[in-house]
Amino acid sequence: MTAPRPAVILVSGGLDSATTLALARRDGFQPYALSFRYGQRHAVELAAARAVCDSQGVVEHRVLDIDLGGFGGSALTADLPVPKGRAVEAMAAAIPLTYVPARNTVFLACSLAWAEVLGAADLFLGANALDYSGYPDCRPEYIRAFEAMANLATRSAVEGGVRFRIHTPLIQLTKAAIIRLGLELGVDYGLTRSCYDPTREGLACGQCDSCLLRLRGFAANGLTDPARYVTA
Amino acid sequence: MTAPRPAVILVSGGLDSATTLALARRDGFQPYALSFRYGQRHAVELAAARAVCDSQGVVEHRVLDIDLGGFGGSALTADLPVPKGRAVEAMAAAIPLTYVPARNTVFLACSLAWAEVLGAADLFLGANALDYSGYPDCRPEYIRAFEAMANLATRSAVEGGVRFRIHTPLIQLTKAAIIRLGLELGVDYGLTRSCYDPTREGLACGQCDSCLLRLRGFAANGLTDPARYVTA
Repeated sequence: MTAPRPAVILVSGGLDSATTLALARRDGFQPYALSFRYGQRHAVELAAARAVCDSQGVVEHRVLDIDLGGFGGSALTADLPVPKGRAVEAMAAAIPLTYVPARNTVFLACSLAWAEVLGAADLFLGANALDYSGYPDCRPEYIRAFEAMANLATRSAVEGGVRFRIHTPLIQLTKAAIIRLGLELGVDYGLTRSCYDPTREGLACGQCDSCLLRLRGFAANGLTDPARYVTA
Repeated sequence: MTAPRPAVILVSGGLDSATTLALARRDGFQPYALSFRYGQRHAVELAAARAVCDSQGVVEHRVLDIDLGGFGGSALTADLPVPKGRAVEAMAAAIPLTYVPARNTVFLACSLAWAEVLGAADLFLGANALDYSGYPDCRPEYIRAFEAMANLATRSAVEGGVRFRIHTPLIQLTKAAIIRLGLELGVDYGLTRSCYDPTREGLACGQCDSCLLRLRGFAANGLTDPARYVTA
């Protein structure tokens, strides 16, 4: 028997973070889930985040408000068009309009604050660099740099001997492999929402990068995505 | 003539950040000021931040809401006693109760987000490691680690060739030297608020670490602090 290990898990309501939460639980962590209301146009994801947390039994789920949308600069928060119908191979060629400036840095910084108060040394983020590699703050070298910074930033690291670790268990997996792993762990993907541009009723568009990658991941496993799409 | 250089300056309403803002202006930066309503008990500092920004002519002043106080863990946000009457020499012996978990990391992360949208490469923070060295996230090694992380985190660094720089011009100055510098640059310290535990009317307590350091800094210059104290 080992002592309980609290961990902060970033839960967006999407497929990747739901799988990451399941992995943290499998590895014996006590999950504290953190979500953000940051001005995203796809706020339906917060209801999905709650459903995912409820289905997996987290210790606590917090939603933090922070108006990154007020800064502008992203198709996810501003009135810019979300790219649709792109070939998956083209997605990684340049950082897309859906990039939100410094989003993972803000999210991880807030997670670090909560982790320190909880006495947790472990943060989990569902970043994925392989499929799909467009975002700079999903790359392994970024994660390692954040970790180094966190271990200089905090009282618990400097005085308490805590060594913070940012876990990104999906970072080198394909979407198909992530889905297989999650299904083995009992993740209910019908609760998750990945679409960047859902309808008001929460139906996925089926055409944005996130939908296309997700659909391809299910198809590669010979499965049908249980999420609801406007075209379905 | 050089091109305009926008910069994001963290302005708390205190003495250090008011001086940092004046230094950024002296060095030719276009100042965009950022403050936070993060659950601090000394929210009177936000009125001071506004007055400081108005007096120095910033391009824009934003106040971002983020509920770090909801996480707890600090005398600045929770119902814990603010230490009073401590000897200045004793302050740096341990990280004090007024430490707010990961505060500068959260503030710098948000500054980075705004800087990226503005096309700014420069962030200014009034951190001070010498007088007073109690906070881990005011040390030069922390600042360098954040800078390294920022240059891996963002589209503008990865695709745009921007090299982010975190300026901490006060980091090795005594409080007395900071005050001399600010007075040379015309900073009106009567507008600033440093107290951790002011009255509802905004009078400084004169006994918390921040007041004691400030009073000592003015005294070392043979000056009287223009701020209003309950004991004055």
